Amino acid sequence: MDLISKTQRVGTVPDNTEFLGEVTTRVGMVMATIRSRIAARSLSPGAKLPSVRGLAASLKVSTSTVVDAYERLVAEGAILSRPGSGFYVASQVAPFSPADVGPKLDRAVDPFWVSRQSLEAGEETLKPGCGWLPPSWLPEESIRKALRGLSRSNGSVLTDYGSPLGLAGLRQLIARRLSEHAVEVSPDQIMLTDSGTQAIDLICRLLLEPGDTVLVDDPCYFNFHALLRAHRVKIVGVAYGPAGPDVEAFSAVLGEHRPKLYITNSGIHNPTGAILSPVVAHRVLKLAEQFDLTIVEDDIFADFELVAAPRLSAFDGLDRVIQIGSFSKALSASMRCGFIATRREWLDGLTDLKIATSFAGASLNAELVRAVLSDGGYRKHLETLRGRLARAMADVTAGLKAIGIEPLLQPQAGMFLWCRLPGDADAAEIARFALEKGVVLAPGNVFSLSQTAGSAMRFNVSQMSDRRVFEVLAEALKA
Amino acid sequence: MDLISKTQRVGTVPDNTEFLGEVTTRVGMVMATIRSRIAARSLSPGAKLPSVRGLAASLKVSTSTVVDAYERLVAEGAILSRPGSGFYVASQVAPFSPADVGPKLDRAVDPFWVSRQSLEAGEETLKPGCGWLPPSWLPEESIRKALRGLSRSNGSVLTDYGSPLGLAGLRQLIARRLSEHAVEVSPDQIMLTDSGTQAIDLICRLLLEPGDTVLVDDPCYFNFHALLRAHRVKIVGVAYGPAGPDVEAFSAVLGEHRPKLYITNSGIHNPTGAILSPVVAHRVLKLAEQFDLTIVEDDIFADFELVAAPRLSAFDGLDRVIQIGSFSKALSASMRCGFIATRREWLDGLTDLKIATSFAGASLNAELVRAVLSDGGYRKHLETLRGRLARAMADVTAGLKAIGIEPLLQPQAGMFLWCRLPGDADAAEIARFALEKGVVLAPGNVFSLSQTAGSAMRFNVSQMSDRRVFEVLAEALKA
Repeated sequence: MDLISKTQRVGTVPDNTEFLGEVTTRVGMVMATIRSRIAARSLSPGAKLPSVRGLAASLKVSTSTVVDAYERLVAEGAILSRPGSGFYVASQVAPFSPADVGPKLDRAVDPFWVSRQSLEAGEETLKPGCGWLPPSWLPEESIRKALRGLSRSNGSVLTDYGSPLGLAGLRQLIARRLSEHAVEVSPDQIMLTDSGTQAIDLICRLLLEPGDTVLVDDPCYFNFHALLRAHRVKIVGVAYGPAGPDVEAFSAVLGEHRPKLYITNSGIHNPTGAILSPVVAHRVLKLAEQFDLTIVEDDIFADFELVAAPRLSAFDGLDRVIQIGSFSKALSASMRCGFIATRREWLDGLTDLKIATSFAGASLNAELVRAVLSDGGYRKHLETLRGRLARAMADVTAGLKAIGIEPLLQPQAGMFLWCRLPGDADAAEIARFALEKGVVLAPGNVFSLSQTAGSAMRFNVSQMSDRRVFEVLAEALKA
Repeated sequence: MDLISKTQRVGTVPDNTEFLGEVTTRVGMVMATIRSRIAARSLSPGAKLPSVRGLAASLKVSTSTVVDAYERLVAEGAILSRPGSGFYVASQVAPFSPADVGPKLDRAVDPFWVSRQSLEAGEETLKPGCGWLPPSWLPEESIRKALRGLSRSNGSVLTDYGSPLGLAGLRQLIARRLSEHAVEVSPDQIMLTDSGTQAIDLICRLLLEPGDTVLVDDPCYFNFHALLRAHRVKIVGVAYGPAGPDVEAFSAVLGEHRPKLYITNSGIHNPTGAILSPVVAHRVLKLAEQFDLTIVEDDIFADFELVAAPRLSAFDGLDRVIQIGSFSKALSASMRCGFIATRREWLDGLTDLKIATSFAGASLNAELVRAVLSDGGYRKHLETLRGRLARAMADVTAGLKAIGIEPLLQPQAGMFLWCRLPGDADAAEIARFALEKGVVLAPGNVFSLSQTAGSAMRFNVSQMSDRRVFEVLAEALKA
């Protein structure tokens, strides 16, 4: 049995250090390979693992490397050793059973870990691992004004369910904003949702069956893993580089796994800060057409861009690309509001699913978002915000370099800086150490399906104005 | 092949007219039986139907009744006739494919129909079929005050994600309210959601696997059907009477189908307005224990009750009963906010699922709901509201009786009146007729899994102050 096909070697365990999730040791690579196949269920619970000799040959590593990797996986509980028989994948844990949720300090590479630590953190906790801006960076005064305005609106705005597609005025504004990124869309092709996450969830509900395969970037936003696990689909990854996904690997993965859906970021990529090049966009779309792949382009960082990057949905005209977005990043995360822009044929099914699973959207929130976006101050707010992010990016880059942490890529814009820890330190261990000191970090492997970003870390530059972050990091690296 | 087992005859096609969904003709009963088995997938797409003679014998009807029913089902497209071979279930339509969504006037017994018609209706449309109150019945002034208060709160309230469980102050208020119904629960056993519907959706995601069986009341809130379809589970029904589910049928259904979950209303039942008796509550819980059944008790009409009905969750102590609720009915539907009260062991899994599929709750909405509930005016609002509903109930009952429409049960409280149309008129046809006149109705079969409520209709008494509703109804009944 050839455990690792050529595609997967190319697609998920790249040797090329140009890619932003990377293998740090041969043992680590073998472990990551096995973990990834278990996660993607190509090795099912109870299945026998390949022989040590066979795997060593197919991976071109020594048998002692494989033995070492298997032993560590046994220690982790991912596989079992049956003396005289071989190694087996541990039994299936039911998805989301309480047993999944161990002591919090042990969940460092669980996709929920960073979310929960960040969301549960008190005021005094520092959160360079979180994915949002501090309140003072957001347009508080415009929001206050919108609330006062709303308090004077008529009763049905205050108390009625929203329409199935959501507030028409906000859908018009969204269509106009999308046209600035060359995405031509009519407001009646847009459905509002309660968040960008709900938008992707509804698309998965419409287009996926349990057991289907979905492609994500490696590394990618960690909640994509969590969401797809909830849909019981098989997840495969493609290495993500400075110009987008590795096109050769992308082609190989489509050929081998025939994923139904590819979920990616447009604009600024999370966690790497990379930007899709027009050439890669073109090739990805050609391959998507060839393999009948639907693409979900998550555009939630659009407002941070200084220069608009190419959108797959603009190239494609919203034919096989669906664009989703939200207002949580640059406006407010407490008034949940997102959207889906897609071909008309899919909207009725999406609307039915929205009604079935959440009945109606939060129309009050849509009114508030519309009011803030219509406010003359919003563009000014974005200009100020982009300048502030650029300055923070420069300061944080310098501060991290001073303690030996190097960016894997210098992003053009946004809040994320994807870095490599010095001496290939274990980011999960650093995160556990930092959490005890009141600092929530985002270790690389929470973003990596193949678990090949063990010494990478994502930093949110807007959450690092307190010098204590750097002190705790330096201390953790020494320990 | 015995198409209809004893259980199902007892459970879903009761002869007993005490039950609130009923068969009006023998042909209708046969059709409903086949439809229900197709819907529940015990007759799969492409499967051969039982022979006419065989079915006639097992149902104790004449062969011509079965022939008539089969021919009508062929005309509907539900089954196919292959001359010389027999009848077959039509091919599967993919769930929620656009093909499901035909011209709107033909969707009269689709669970989405009433929702969409009501949600899409313009100001001029009358909506006795909808499930909510007119804006002027809701606490508009308290909401305005809450919005003004919120406009003065600090930045993190206005812009931050909420905590995973949701606003602690609101969870405390909910715990206090539940204790008034003898449901003893700690605030840390409560998770906020963005709606009652999302609450049930998350529970389904936690506890159900595709292919599991779920029990609902027949009739029940139509969106339960839609939600469960989205979860790809098999749905079975139990006849719902004036004191709760038919206990004998309940026992038989549990024995035969072993459902994992039972979703029902507590307090005022939708659509019938019935109230659970303590004896039935006790027996239902005994059976649930015997068959290891988990129960979701949807308590969204709690604020309408004059006298609190027994809660399954109070009897059970939130062991195998989960209570969910929301504030859409008596406070506002535009600020989406619901909750789940459950045993602690399930909360971590529910929280992970909430993060995976919607990331965080709308904390702004939770703040608004808390402010309105804490306002001294809210109890006064509820008193006024209950009085107004009681008067509307009396007026509407009289108005409907005058045109021959009789309540199947006189509810003690709430907004719904479940009625039988005169001469067993076809409620779906009446609804189609009324829609063309600008009146949205809720025909009985949208609530009925067994499709045995074809001449029943649910009326929302708060939406019937315009005499035109009665005129259109009278006209439709004549036509």
